[in-house]
Amino acid sequence: MKNDNPHPMTWQFAQRTSRLQSSAIREILKITMRPEITSFAGGLPSPETFPVEQMQKAFDAVLSRQGKVALQYGPTDGYAPLRAWIADSLSTDGAKILPEQVLMLSGSQQGLDLLGKVLIDPGSKVLVETPSYLGALQAFSLYEPEFVSLPSDDQGLHAESIDTLGAGGRLLYALPNFQNPTGRTMTLDRRVALVEACARHSIPLIEDNPYGALSYVGKTLPSMLSMNPGGVVYMGSFSKVLTPGIRLGYVVAPLPLIQRLEQAKQAADLHTAQLTQMVVYEVIKDGFLDTHIPTIRTLYAGQCQAMMDALTEFFPAGVTWTKPEGGMFTWVTLPAHINSTQLLAEAVEQLVAFVPGAPFYANSPQTNTLRLSFVTVPPEKIRAGIERLGKLIKAKM
Amino acid sequence: MKNDNPHPMTWQFAQRTSRLQSSAIREILKITMRPEITSFAGGLPSPETFPVEQMQKAFDAVLSRQGKVALQYGPTDGYAPLRAWIADSLSTDGAKILPEQVLMLSGSQQGLDLLGKVLIDPGSKVLVETPSYLGALQAFSLYEPEFVSLPSDDQGLHAESIDTLGAGGRLLYALPNFQNPTGRTMTLDRRVALVEACARHSIPLIEDNPYGALSYVGKTLPSMLSMNPGGVVYMGSFSKVLTPGIRLGYVVAPLPLIQRLEQAKQAADLHTAQLTQMVVYEVIKDGFLDTHIPTIRTLYAGQCQAMMDALTEFFPAGVTWTKPEGGMFTWVTLPAHINSTQLLAEAVEQLVAFVPGAPFYANSPQTNTLRLSFVTVPPEKIRAGIERLGKLIKAKM
Repeated sequence: MKNDNPHPMTWQFAQRTSRLQSSAIREILKITMRPEITSFAGGLPSPETFPVEQMQKAFDAVLSRQGKVALQYGPTDGYAPLRAWIADSLSTDGAKILPEQVLMLSGSQQGLDLLGKVLIDPGSKVLVETPSYLGALQAFSLYEPEFVSLPSDDQGLHAESIDTLGAGGRLLYALPNFQNPTGRTMTLDRRVALVEACARHSIPLIEDNPYGALSYVGKTLPSMLSMNPGGVVYMGSFSKVLTPGIRLGYVVAPLPLIQRLEQAKQAADLHTAQLTQMVVYEVIKDGFLDTHIPTIRTLYAGQCQAMMDALTEFFPAGVTWTKPEGGMFTWVTLPAHINSTQLLAEAVEQLVAFVPGAPFYANSPQTNTLRLSFVTVPPEKIRAGIERLGKLIKAKM
Repeated sequence: MKNDNPHPMTWQFAQRTSRLQSSAIREILKITMRPEITSFAGGLPSPETFPVEQMQKAFDAVLSRQGKVALQYGPTDGYAPLRAWIADSLSTDGAKILPEQVLMLSGSQQGLDLLGKVLIDPGSKVLVETPSYLGALQAFSLYEPEFVSLPSDDQGLHAESIDTLGAGGRLLYALPNFQNPTGRTMTLDRRVALVEACARHSIPLIEDNPYGALSYVGKTLPSMLSMNPGGVVYMGSFSKVLTPGIRLGYVVAPLPLIQRLEQAKQAADLHTAQLTQMVVYEVIKDGFLDTHIPTIRTLYAGQCQAMMDALTEFFPAGVTWTKPEGGMFTWVTLPAHINSTQLLAEAVEQLVAFVPGAPFYANSPQTNTLRLSFVTVPPEKIRAGIERLGKLIKAKM
């Protein structure tokens, strides 16, 4: 059958695959991986922040001391000392988190897939910010929900909209600190109101917090988890405070949910690499992050300032952008008549790239928006890239 | 809301979670992790076979040379040199496999989840062997298929049954070499017939091959992939030839399918750890497996022989078992009146454990069967454990 196969395959895919992201933007973004392009597109942490030497020592130590354990199959829920460390780090005086509430993940993206699998039926209402994290929309969409985009502004989403739009929602997904894509931070008042509204409607509130540690002033608002540990599902990651390539994150949830997530995780990939978990624990157990994270904050604060300065200098009046207090992104709003997806094609010709804003909207995309990352590109290149982009925009004003 | 919460959460889970495995057996098997128990239950490779030193050197080399690349986000499809190595290792004179057909996975279990996601709608017919790999049944079941158990015997499944039972099947899942759970090997004639029947019905044939390299005589029958690369989806793993704890596997599929699997993988966990892929490539690129795998085969062949000898010596007439030519498992059939799940409870009291056979059946479980692994427990403990188990069975004859 190898040659002249009399039975060529007719593929029949599952209905849900019609939700898989169209490849147009993926293809453009593949081009932006070319080294000659100044790319503000990626959400890649600066490799300057990766503690390569510490990781190397930790791999060596763990493999020397416990190699055969580290390389064997491990429990689905994760490496116990690391789970205890995470539970401890998230516990507050009023809200104690138990290690049994922590499930280790192959990157926190996996938590979005597992939450979708366990909570979303076809047609379920899923409540999201406007705009929201693209990776969450992609993960959830494969479970065929009906997305409800809740009204949001620079202070985060309007909790009172849940009363009118959110009833019956199967989950609400929010990224309160230095949001991807907008860089905005949800205020304390909004957090309190959101936690209260979700609890009142019995809607699990997913609090995704990959960037929380990256506050430029070194402090963040209280987690929503700490306000209602019985109703909030918290997701964390080592990608932005250590390194992303090891794929290590976690989800914290009330026991009825975490048990189902654990079973779904077992079916999805059995467990997350033991070795990785043991190495990360080895690196962080004696307080490494307390000295390491401030160096990341300082670096990113400087890069953010370089981006803000360049935007002020080179972007024309009529264009606005957010002023992030942490994280990796700023969000640009162009005049309504400029379509950022079309702009991207021209920008790539000028060797500069970004992510168009449209895919971050679950409904009714605002096509005049775009996301810029300021952490991957060094300051001198930020300035030159923004200058080129500013010229393109001016030509369209 | 932390104390006296006026809004305790009422959880509403997705319909598909009703398919999550009931916890009875999981709970028994957790007990069998206790060190005083001789457990034939786990599918754990012998840690004696883990090349700890080589892995340690490779982590050191990769982190020294390319630390910042290895620790950064990577492409969803995987590390290009490793994909090329895999494509090359699977190519035959008649069937060339392209690197673009290879998607790296966080363990081959992930391939089962992604295939389910991309191919199975609720109610889709999914064809499996009788019995079949439990992890595959679990992964697929979350996509709510209708399982069809195809008649199977010691030579594998009867391909002609597809004409009567399989029409419209969305996929067929088979594990041809040293099957989990039965240890049986599908004959060449059966493979040819199966490939032909699946092609004729346009049913993607999933060939799961985690144990293929572990033939005690050092050779295996041709892959079904090599017989029809346009219609066969091949899954492989580094768990049994290197180490399982790193979680590294792969799926090879025709381009229309692999593209959708890649998109589903991106939504599920972005990508598999770059560092792990680079380290495994570093370990295997100069032929390490050619000398390493024979040492695993020799070890497991000896352990298998110890198990066969013990079964012959201690199990009563009326009990039968398979004689594996490779892999990790043998499958025991007790007299029809003995329920192996009940037997397990008694066995654990005698400090010996196994996996009851019932969960490996997609339909109509044969409750008098059980799976024994012979690779985790050393030979002297195999003998003593089988002696205790034999006594329990004799008492029920």
